[in-house]
Amino acid sequence: MRAERPRQAEIIAVGSELLTPFRVDTNSLWLTERLNALGIEVVVKTIVGDDEALLERLIREALARSEILILTGGLGPTEDDVTRKALARALGRGLTLDEQVLERIRARFASRGLVMPKINERQALVLEGAIVLENRYGTAPGMFLEQQGRVLVALPGPPSEMQAMFESEVMPLLEPLAGGLKIGYRTLRVAGMSESAVDQAIAPIYTQYANPRTTILATTSGIEIHLTAVGTTEEEIEARLNEVSDRIERALGARVFTTRGESLEEVIGRLCLIKRYTIAVAESVTGGLVAKRLTNVPGSSRYFRGGITAYSDEAKTALLGIPADLLATHGAVSAEVAEAMAQRVKVQLATTMGMAITGLAGPQGGTPEKPVGLVFIALADDVHVESHRHWFPGDRARIRELAAQAALALLYERVL
Amino acid sequence: MRAERPRQAEIIAVGSELLTPFRVDTNSLWLTERLNALGIEVVVKTIVGDDEALLERLIREALARSEILILTGGLGPTEDDVTRKALARALGRGLTLDEQVLERIRARFASRGLVMPKINERQALVLEGAIVLENRYGTAPGMFLEQQGRVLVALPGPPSEMQAMFESEVMPLLEPLAGGLKIGYRTLRVAGMSESAVDQAIAPIYTQYANPRTTILATTSGIEIHLTAVGTTEEEIEARLNEVSDRIERALGARVFTTRGESLEEVIGRLCLIKRYTIAVAESVTGGLVAKRLTNVPGSSRYFRGGITAYSDEAKTALLGIPADLLATHGAVSAEVAEAMAQRVKVQLATTMGMAITGLAGPQGGTPEKPVGLVFIALADDVHVESHRHWFPGDRARIRELAAQAALALLYERVL
Repeated sequence: MRAERPRQAEIIAVGSELLTPFRVDTNSLWLTERLNALGIEVVVKTIVGDDEALLERLIREALARSEILILTGGLGPTEDDVTRKALARALGRGLTLDEQVLERIRARFASRGLVMPKINERQALVLEGAIVLENRYGTAPGMFLEQQGRVLVALPGPPSEMQAMFESEVMPLLEPLAGGLKIGYRTLRVAGMSESAVDQAIAPIYTQYANPRTTILATTSGIEIHLTAVGTTEEEIEARLNEVSDRIERALGARVFTTRGESLEEVIGRLCLIKRYTIAVAESVTGGLVAKRLTNVPGSSRYFRGGITAYSDEAKTALLGIPADLLATHGAVSAEVAEAMAQRVKVQLATTMGMAITGLAGPQGGTPEKPVGLVFIALADDVHVESHRHWFPGDRARIRELAAQAALALLYERVL
Repeated sequence: MRAERPRQAEIIAVGSELLTPFRVDTNSLWLTERLNALGIEVVVKTIVGDDEALLERLIREALARSEILILTGGLGPTEDDVTRKALARALGRGLTLDEQVLERIRARFASRGLVMPKINERQALVLEGAIVLENRYGTAPGMFLEQQGRVLVALPGPPSEMQAMFESEVMPLLEPLAGGLKIGYRTLRVAGMSESAVDQAIAPIYTQYANPRTTILATTSGIEIHLTAVGTTEEEIEARLNEVSDRIERALGARVFTTRGESLEEVIGRLCLIKRYTIAVAESVTGGLVAKRLTNVPGSSRYFRGGITAYSDEAKTALLGIPADLLATHGAVSAEVAEAMAQRVKVQLATTMGMAITGLAGPQGGTPEKPVGLVFIALADDVHVESHRHWFPGDRARIRELAAQAALALLYERVL
């Protein structure tokens, strides 16, 4: 990839809160995706607090390294918002009050029946020679400036303001500057396999290609395979992505449930609508998480009838009619109880399929025979009931997430 | 805070995967917390790919700015792992093969019955004059170096390796260098108020203090108020935090549900156990999310009996016995249906309290009278039922999260 390098950009995120242990800069992820779509590669990301002198220095250094610099944050109305001043110093340009911008800020306050506080005047200060970028969702305007072959863009920090401004104002200005190379992505999502099993199966394929580059990522909603290709045309990028993507799909089969960015619950929903299946879920260990994921999908009420979170033994009896002696004989965490729960919830909601999840997420309550992490997942239809025994590693939250993912993977296989 | 400034550090995270739209650097959050505990402030964070020349340049620039530089990543055995070489060039030091390190890497492979691949020899290359940091969970050793009043630390990228190495090897070396100042944090969590309402209520307090510094953060599980104090002793920091924290708590009252890092569902759980309350939940719009959050808490089966996700109208009738004519008269999204659901689920599970959430998360299905974002939350006990009408902004996911948070905030108020 080094021989055919796209244009290079850096991103600086400004804000002291981004230097605490509580916050990450996520604006840069969205910006990277959009810049890559224009064929611009992000080579450095920097995060700095509300420190004018330090920011000025970082801007100078970034402009000495890279052609394009995007700043986010620090455009608010208070003393802490130092981006305008730091830019003016770093670029050796003055700040002037833009009457048109001031008018827009005043109008924004007026439209809500408010008088603009004096402090907001500062947001109408604009770098000499900069193009002002309108902010449709807030008061702080952005700026776009070309100087000595460098491109500089300053955007507000709130994601909704930043994204809208980038799409409508910055994209048209950057596009002609973006150069000949483009970057394209494809994400393959895989259900029912571990990260290492996926890697073992596809490493012989992806290691043959430097372009596209392949990254495997374990997320709480399954394994993702990311392909990143560089090329001079959309067609070239598509062809490069198709070649590797097709080989990986052949290797993994139907376990690749999407190459179009859908979630597993969306794919399940699509299949249910096509096949006219309806679903009900009885959850113990996942406590509503499977129902929550199924109802992430708009329109899911057309196939997902409902769910029962039977967290206590009493609830398993009261809501699902699981016989107390079945619970006593096998324990709540057992194949027998999982299967009974799946069958009962199916009957109660008169669906095509009933699913149930029971297990132990801990940290307390494990025994040598039934350790923390043990989970049974059952699926029942009119003629058949099956159950699967799993042992998931990790803490309480992780076990619940892995159990929900495994349940949806089983459901996917069955509705397929 | 400027007069009593702690020592300053920068963090550079190395790895091309950290420059894709899919990944954020989270190592720096953990490192920031540990560095702050030593009284070291993080002033810049930089993220760069596997590019030796660029990394060398960034190391030089960071060392010219700050006293302490921590690098994570890029210490693996492949060509892509460029941290060692970039450091050697930036510092003008050679790399020498450390026989002891090589022996440890060989032994690590041998303990798993493997012969060390030739490629891993590279991981035994150590900067001249550096202290080698042992890696108990992987092959890549770390390095610690002092040069011309600067401190440089190189750590492996995998979090488990990085964290263990920092705790056992780096902390003892950094502690004597950390200077007299320490940093302390406190987080107040608030339920049932918006970010701007919180700000309005407490700005007159926190603007009087530069130390501690106050940051307000809106998260999907409520509003957080972060206080950051600097001082020479733990006692001084505690006193500074207490002063502002106490004033904020007096201003907000019981809406501050914790100052000890607990989640809202944990506080509800603690209160339920003390007061011997039991809970049942009937969910429509949140589709299991409220039950999921309540069962995040270990031991929640002692007070959370269970939940019903009645996503379709049929399910509201079949599982909760909501009369079809009530649904027809008022619609599923109404105070009447919310209250009936809360009362029914309470009876079915024989609990102290029943809660219900019904609403429209969209994107389809909104009308002028019942727009997307309209949510009713009801709470029933033996003698009383109440319901609250909300309108939440945002997309489907955000509406569901805000509705679940509002439901838990109501439950918290009632169990208090």
